[in-house]
Amino acid sequence: MIPDDHPRYRSLVARERIADAVRSGIVVVEGASAHGRGEAFDYLLGEETSASAARAEETAAAFLMAADRPVISVNGNTAALAAVEIRDLAKASGAAVEVNLFHRTEARMEAITAHLNSAGVSVLEGTAERLLPLSHDRALCLREGIGAADVVLVPLEDGDRCEALVAMGKTVITIDLNPLSRTAKTATVTIVDELTRALPNITRACREMTPETQARLIAAHDNTALLRAALEQIQETLADALD
Amino acid sequence: MIPDDHPRYRSLVARERIADAVRSGIVVVEGASAHGRGEAFDYLLGEETSASAARAEETAAAFLMAADRPVISVNGNTAALAAVEIRDLAKASGAAVEVNLFHRTEARMEAITAHLNSAGVSVLEGTAERLLPLSHDRALCLREGIGAADVVLVPLEDGDRCEALVAMGKTVITIDLNPLSRTAKTATVTIVDELTRALPNITRACREMTPETQARLIAAHDNTALLRAALEQIQETLADALD
Repeated sequence: MIPDDHPRYRSLVARERIADAVRSGIVVVEGASAHGRGEAFDYLLGEETSASAARAEETAAAFLMAADRPVISVNGNTAALAAVEIRDLAKASGAAVEVNLFHRTEARMEAITAHLNSAGVSVLEGTAERLLPLSHDRALCLREGIGAADVVLVPLEDGDRCEALVAMGKTVITIDLNPLSRTAKTATVTIVDELTRALPNITRACREMTPETQARLIAAHDNTALLRAALEQIQETLADALD
Repeated sequence: MIPDDHPRYRSLVARERIADAVRSGIVVVEGASAHGRGEAFDYLLGEETSASAARAEETAAAFLMAADRPVISVNGNTAALAAVEIRDLAKASGAAVEVNLFHRTEARMEAITAHLNSAGVSVLEGTAERLLPLSHDRALCLREGIGAADVVLVPLEDGDRCEALVAMGKTVITIDLNPLSRTAKTATVTIVDELTRALPNITRACREMTPETQARLIAAHDNTALLRAALEQIQETLADALD
């Protein structure tokens, strides 16, 4: 048990959840090392939501609320860390939820769907088709889900898939702690923040969204500026350490 | 298979080795996420040995060659990534090799020992005793190994154990990609470099060491300066990205 007054409590709980999820088959081992990469960047970001990340989260809410067919794409790490937060965001934004895995097996698809269902998430079901311009199973998604979506939220996505979705003309929102990653650079809206901090902020912004705020956030959106702000945040952490 | 002309070939091979080692029981899931944290820092360091890391590696060789009873402490990640490199360093430095695990079980001790043996590493054996001022199995080590060592190389170590070894009056050399970690800040010599780049450099320096160089490196050693140089290296990567 991690004492709940530990200064890095949330980070250690998330690490434990990922390890448990590997043991239960929801997360692959590669997912655990990807989580570790995220942890390192979060540490450098000070493990809190920066002003620019908060802005990115409001902007993500604006795009989701303006969408005709928003979809949240959920992978193993996202399901393990944030099933309840996904449920709340889906409800607040009206987005559908589709399970989409990099290391796809039927067993994992079922385990993750069951885990999400038990948290109260309705998951799109159907026969996946090769709709993304990618090789292998990474091309698979649902025609009525990601296939038809105009706005897709893909937390913790890999670079190839993010690029493919953007190339298909979709508005892609990602949550990625590495501001230098290909996903971060490619997405329409990049939220450089930890998943379980980011999702409730997006949900709150969806609930409070007005047509005026929505139009203003979309018009003013500048993803390059958001990425620069995240890099500057890391630089500040390093500068503090060097003092 | 990862194509060997991939710009991040070494990093991807290491990631795959760790995943395989989790599946074979040598590395625990927590080791995979720790590896991911290291990867993120290595990415920010440019995935190459910096001038200050090269200096740290030479200094580590000087301390190992000057030691009466040097010991290399090997954990699951180190065994999975660098069994051959450990063998070469043990031979070049005259250091003994002891397996020391954070998540200690007899099955893992045996699997790691067998893996090291098959790479040609002689591993100290005996009955571990609670010699470190720590709770639980993390206190265990061999009286004739780490217990009696004057210089200990502990790659990829956790902060508590590093502190305990320093508190026992030992010279502690660590290899840790996070220059802000407690281990990095606590060790006598901190090598901020990736394990499989660092170990052959230390081995080469051991082979080439002269009494003069050894005395000069030890006298001039300044760990704070090495850590600052590593932080500055990360700052450069970020500054380049912001250009």
